[in-house]
Order: sequence, then structure tokens, then C-alpha cells
Amino acid sequence: MSGYTQLKERKRGDYPYILDYRTRWSDNDMYDHMNNSIYNFLYDSVINTYLIENCGLDPPNGSQYGMVVHSHNDYFSSISFPACAQLALRVNKIGNSSVTYEIALFEKGVEGVKSVGEFIQVFVDRQTGRPNAAGMKASLRQGLERILVKPPSSKL
Amino acid sequence: MSGYTQLKERKRGDYPYILDYRTRWSDNDMYDHMNNSIYNFLYDSVINTYLIENCGLDPPNGSQYGMVVHSHNDYFSSISFPACAQLALRVNKIGNSSVTYEIALFEKGVEGVKSVGEFIQVFVDRQTGRPNAAGMKASLRQGLERILVKPPSSKL
Amino acid sequence: MSGYTQLKERKRGDYPYILDYRTRWSDNDMYDHMNNSIYNFLYDSVINTYLIENCGLDPPNGSQYGMVVHSHNDYFSSISFPACAQLALRVNKIGNSSVTYEIALFEKGVEGVKSVGEFIQVFVDRQTGRPNAAGMKASLRQGLERILVKPPSSKL
Amino acid sequence: MSGYTQLKERKRGDYPYILDYRTRWSDNDMYDHMNNSIYNFLYDSVINTYLIENCGLDPPNGSQYGMVVHSHNDYFSSISFPACAQLALRVNKIGNSSVTYEIALFEKGVEGVKSVGEFIQVFVDRQTGRPNAAGMKASLRQGLERILVKPPSSKL
Repeated sequence: MSGYTQLKERKRGDYPYILDYRTRWSDNDMYDHMNNSIYNFLYDSVINTYLIENCGLDPPNGSQYGMVVHSHNDYFSSISFPACAQLALRVNKIGNSSVTYEIALFEKGVEGVKSVGEFIQVFVDRQTGRPNAAGMKASLRQGLERILVKPPSSKL
Repeated sequence: MSGYTQLKERKRGDYPYILDYRTRWSDNDMYDHMNNSIYNFLYDSVINTYLIENCGLDPPNGSQYGMVVHSHNDYFSSISFPACAQLALRVNKIGNSSVTYEIALFEKGVEGVKSVGEFIQVFVDRQTGRPNAAGMKASLRQGLERILVKPPSSKL
Repeated sequence: MSGYTQLKERKRGDYPYILDYRTRWSDNDMYDHMNNSIYNFLYDSVINTYLIENCGLDPPNGSQYGMVVHSHNDYFSSISFPACAQLALRVNKIGNSSVTYEIALFEKGVEGVKSVGEFIQVFVDRQTGRPNAAGMKASLRQGLERILVKPPSSKL
Repeated sequence: MSGYTQLKERKRGDYPYILDYRTRWSDNDMYDHMNNSIYNFLYDSVINTYLIENCGLDPPNGSQYGMVVHSHNDYFSSISFPACAQLALRVNKIGNSSVTYEIALFEKGVEGVKSVGEFIQVFVDRQTGRPNAAGMKASLRQGLERILVKPPSSKL
């Protein structure tokens, strides 16, 4: 995981997959900006859109599905309805059954990043609810590898 | 209010204001289509975006705000994440302090309408929470009149 | 359907099934009271809790499920987080495959009703997505009949 | 912050403040259990209920309000509508303007903890949106100290 200062400097160019999400009236809370919990809704949405459209995920029927086991998020600056959000996605790590996504939220037309977080998902078999010894399906692994961003190798 | 059969035939061309809203993962319920309550969230969002951008509504500070007193909705066909929704808005009636909106939900790339509903809002003064004898502010009325669609006059 | 004035006079005693739902921070919108769309979430929740606990509904697996085809709601007074809401349910009408629920929202410790609405659900077969000629399953009908409230017969 | 293994062993008795929250129909996602983003909604709700009822927080008017700058969560086991959730709250750390909450989610009638997370809030002045040099207000500090749980001192 990158440090706080590095994350705060994230650019759109650091992410291979970006989708626009218009904010909704109910996203704002009593403080007139988007509630912190909504970020997770949007993170979940860009992840699952990528999985469905590029990795063969079929939520109602597929033999494997992703279960979130950990999430964290750093909030740098706020966004408010009716702004349009841009959700940016990359994969930081792929294990046998698990994947670590990094997601950033930008506001359309605004340069600096608003928040950066990570979700760790474990792909489990629908029938058992447990990971498969053979790991995630090939279509998932191949799709996820296409947006895997390796950390720059350390300088020696 | 138009009859059920008429509403089911609504086209995008019947509405002067349309916005795209990408659906979110959590919009789908256990039946794998968008939950009926989400329609109201989206109706509310297109209405308030129009009010903020075209009628001078300022939710955190304005002297008047809109309170929903009635809503109804007819559901014709379902939509599912990760489809993109299109929310179409018109005004059917403007009173002294009240306004009747008609909102339709379409799916991007699909012809038939998915749902049509109405929201009735009453503009109230922030200080009293009650309508003002002078009615809604001029900026609200002028903005709403721009998307007022009068019913076709009855045949004689 | 009862008239607006009648609905505004509804009491807890008019409903055979009542559940407490604590409001959530995010239920309040920028006007500091519960957003109108949240009412539908809560209506949906009390209906489905009743169906699961008293009518044998099994959302992920059952052969029939309920699809909302119409909803409407009248809002009489507001409620704000962190109040506790009470959701009151009755059935107004049972057809071959359809059911009309009436739902009221109260605030714990407050007498007057906050809102009253109706949902019309059609039970459809999971495989076809259409109503069955034989209508809803017996377990559904029997459970719904237990909270059916017949309108008072008209005076002669 | 405690380690993963310690968190997984949390009991209700580790938390001085617990509230019941009935789950809602829409909390479940297509995998038929509560969506991971809903946990944050509930964490936010128990935190703000405590702040309003015990620390003098007045969201629409108060001179200071809490802004979430970091959140993380570990998910150990799932919960599904229509179960009743129990949200348990403690404070792990109090700074000049910041506070670290630990929140756990249990299911009523079930022993093991479902998830444990932390939220870090910074109290900022409403007028500037920035922390005050004098730190959080006395009423906030006093209320938060009442549920502060100090880590056991290390054995020597």
C-alpha cells in the first residue's frame, strides 16, 4: 500500500479504467456534501462494472463471486451533488483467490483527487461460500491482470 | 394525470430535460434488478439538478425549498445494474406554491419507457416551513415554466 | 383507496403489524429531515419482513416473488434522524396474483401519522417473470389474509 | 489499532454503547447478504446518534461538525435482511481535534462479531471547514471520553 502523501498526489493517468457517475440528491448529507459511506457504494460500482464487462462475472448465476473482506479509504477533499464523479480503478495485487483494488474518486472538471481507497475481495465458490483450492477462474484473472499496476521497482 | 396506457407510451421526446445516471451495484436487489425505491432517488435527483442549475435553487442557503407532499409511480419494465439510466423530466402543473413534475426512466440504448411517476412539491419558506402567501419565488416559477408541458386540448 | 383526509387520521390501531426501524444518519437530506425516497425503502422493508416471516417468502430461492407495479405516498409531516420510525402494515385488497398493501410511518413517541402510502405487488413465477394462471401460492394468500383490513361497509 | 486476530474476537462487552438497527430490504445485494457499503452507513449512524444524544452535537446548526478523514473495515462474516443488527461503539483515541472510533457489528441473537472497523473524524469549524486551534469543543471531548477504551498496558 502506498503512503498517504503518495495517494494524495494520484492523477487520473494512474488508473487504466475510469467511469463517470452522476451524484444523486440523497448522496449529500446534512453537511451538504457527499456522505462518506457513498464513496464505498461508488467504489463497489466501478469494480463490479469492470468485473461484469471485462472479466465474465455473472452475479446472479456465476459459479464464483467476489466477497469484500477488507476496505479502507482516505478522504482528501469533498464533493457535492449535483457534481459528476469520476471513479478510477486499478488492481494493485492478485493472489490465488484474492485481489486488491485501488479506487480513486475525482470530480469532473476538477484536477485534484478527492479520495483514494482499497478493497480486498476474495472470490469464493457459490456452492460453498469458500475459496476454491484452484483459485479464481481464468476469465477473472485475465481481466484483472489487464488493469494490474505494478509498483515502481525500488531504486538501488 | 394521464392514464396508465398513455404513460406506458411515453417517449423521450415528451420530455424537455434528460440526464444520464449510471446505475450502482447496490441499486439491484435480491431479484437482480433495480429496487423500486431507487426510482424515487433518481426522480429526486433529476428534479433537484434542474432546480439548482436552472431555477436558482440553493439547497443549503436559499430562502425557499421544495417539500415533497405526494409521489406516485407506475413500473412497466425493469432495469438492472450496470445499465445506464436516463431520467426525463417535465412539469405538468404549476400552482401558487406547488409544482407537479412528471418523471420517466429510460434505459440507454433501449426504446420503451421503464417507469413514469409524478412528484408534487410545495415550496416553503425556510424560516417557517410553510408556503409563502406570495407563492414560489420568481426564479423558480420562470425556470419551471420552461419545461411545462400542457396537455393537448380536448377534441370538440 | 381512502381519501386524503381519512389517511391523515390513521392511527397505529388501524394496522395489525408494526415494526420499529431506527433511522440512519444518511436518511436525512440537506434539509435535515428524512428524504422522501427513504419512506419507500422502509415500506419495502416492513412488507418483505412480513412476507418472509409470515407467508413463506424465500427471496433467493422461492418459486414466486413479488414485483412492485405501482406505488404512491402522501407525506403529512416530517421525521428526522436519530428518531426511531415505526412502520405499520395492512393489506387492503387481494386479487388472484396481486396484493395492495397500505403502509403508514409513525415516529416512536409521537401520536400523529407521518405518511401513508400504498404498494401494489404482483407475484410472478421466477422462471417466467409472469403471473401464474393459478395465482399466488397458498402460503402467500393465507399470510396476507391475516392482515387484510376490509373497508367499513357503506352506510345505507 | 488492534490486530486482525484480536478484532475477530471482539465481544459486545468490549463496547460501552450499543444500539439495535433493523436491516432493510435494500441492504441485501445480489448475493443475498448485506452489501459491504451498508456497514459504513450503520457505523456512521451509531457514531452520530451518540454524538447528538451524549456530546451536544447539533448537525444543522452547531459551530463544529465532524468530518470523516479515514475509514477501514474488516468483514468476518455476513448478515442478511431481515435480521436485526447491533452496532457497538467505543472510542480508541482522542486528539486535539480528532477522534478514532471503533465500531463493531453484531447480529441480534448471534454470538460472534460480524465486522469491526475504525472511523477517524476531525472536528472542524462550520465557518472555515478547518480544525480550530483550540481543538474540539468541551462538550464533545467530555462525551467522547466517557466511551474511551484504553488498550491494556503491555506486560513487562
